[in-house]
Amino acid sequence: MTYCLAINVNDGLVLCSDSRTNAGTDNVSVYSKMHTFIWPGQRFFVLLSAGNLATTQAVVKKLNNDIPAGLAPNLLTVNSMQEAADYLGVVSTQVQKLHTSRDTATTSFEATFVFGGQIAGQAPEMFMVYPQGNYIHESREHPFLQIGEIKYGKPILDRVVKRDVSLERAARCALVSMNSTIRSNVTVGPPVELLIYERDSLGEGRRIYFSEDDPYARQLSERWNEGLMKALQDLPPFPWETETKTAEDDGRVLNFPSNA
Amino acid sequence: MTYCLAINVNDGLVLCSDSRTNAGTDNVSVYSKMHTFIWPGQRFFVLLSAGNLATTQAVVKKLNNDIPAGLAPNLLTVNSMQEAADYLGVVSTQVQKLHTSRDTATTSFEATFVFGGQIAGQAPEMFMVYPQGNYIHESREHPFLQIGEIKYGKPILDRVVKRDVSLERAARCALVSMNSTIRSNVTVGPPVELLIYERDSLGEGRRIYFSEDDPYARQLSERWNEGLMKALQDLPPFPWETETKTAEDDGRVLNFPSNA
Repeated sequence: MTYCLAINVNDGLVLCSDSRTNAGTDNVSVYSKMHTFIWPGQRFFVLLSAGNLATTQAVVKKLNNDIPAGLAPNLLTVNSMQEAADYLGVVSTQVQKLHTSRDTATTSFEATFVFGGQIAGQAPEMFMVYPQGNYIHESREHPFLQIGEIKYGKPILDRVVKRDVSLERAARCALVSMNSTIRSNVTVGPPVELLIYERDSLGEGRRIYFSEDDPYARQLSERWNEGLMKALQDLPPFPWETETKTAEDDGRVLNFPSNA
Repeated sequence: MTYCLAINVNDGLVLCSDSRTNAGTDNVSVYSKMHTFIWPGQRFFVLLSAGNLATTQAVVKKLNNDIPAGLAPNLLTVNSMQEAADYLGVVSTQVQKLHTSRDTATTSFEATFVFGGQIAGQAPEMFMVYPQGNYIHESREHPFLQIGEIKYGKPILDRVVKRDVSLERAARCALVSMNSTIRSNVTVGPPVELLIYERDSLGEGRRIYFSEDDPYARQLSERWNEGLMKALQDLPPFPWETETKTAEDDGRVLNFPSNA
């Protein structure tokens, strides 16, 4: 399994991916699921991938090779992020069709991508590209995209991530979302890769690699646990916890507005 | 869809369920998924259900009817929680087989249950009863069980719930887990039912019904949001946020222990 997420805030993009791949539970490996394509000052693209690893690798290879081969469109000729997403969708379905045509079983060659970036003079954007090659844009109300094992890490994003969150806070939120997923599902695992791209920087961004025993990642996880315990302590008590018990309070709820 | 969870702590049991059922997205209803069977001073049982609603209702009806019908085993004759879980598993598979035998399509009649309770003189226990009629006990390291749409609400339970957590704190934790699930997945919805059973009380427990606009539930959700924002604020800053930037700090990560 996989968990990747991307957040698009006013200040830029945050991208985060785990590195665990498996072909059966007894064949677990580590592969990066974050691929960058950068022309400093001109264009910055990053690809997060989930699904068939051979498909993903073939797609990345073709994105890289189409440029020197002079095939158009390619990542240097596309005029917008949407054209780039469209191109990625075409490449992905071509690869899947090729692999399917050689298949002797009923293998799934599907891969899903989050594709984000910025072209000089345009706004940063990101898309989720489905195995069918079509894609969706993130929304203003919901400025994040997730692929893979998305459910464990979604509540924190739903509650916290808005466009006006700072880049660093969005990055910490992404790490918490990833950390929760790793704790709850063994098929998602470290190392974790994080990329923080400042809007209009058109550079490499800050790319950070958190190994399993990384001290910052451990500190973040511990501090988050402490924060959750604190948040839990601060929740409003039930009415009977603050009331003086009376003879009538025999275990049923008294004076409780919503008691049924 | 459904989300139900149960927590077994030293002080007793906490059970929580949503009430949304659907037969297709255009056929959404409200049904309680929490069923109690109580003989004060003698035995207390509670059943949470997920899956086919007709199966669930037929199972509950049979559990109730087997007693006056004098059929054994029944909830009054079983000598342990495990015998009760076994009996429930038999009833569930009988109902499913009956409904399947009449099926003209390929309908799924499956239902999954969390079954908890206490028999006088014994410890409170809880089980997850699968559609196949077999079951598992919760574990000491993992004193909670979930059925239905379990992933969104699992991280908070993984991080917080231990045997020594107080009954009220476990109950608030259950409500947070439910609230996160409701926020992230529209197929899980209010009203929410909560049952807090104090160990050895062998009574009805505190059963609370939270409607959609319940003031306590709303306050809990708001306070939890505030707590999460605070927890996020308290996370350790990235190294570059606290360092004085130097001329060399051109966007790449400097002095970062795990930079790759």
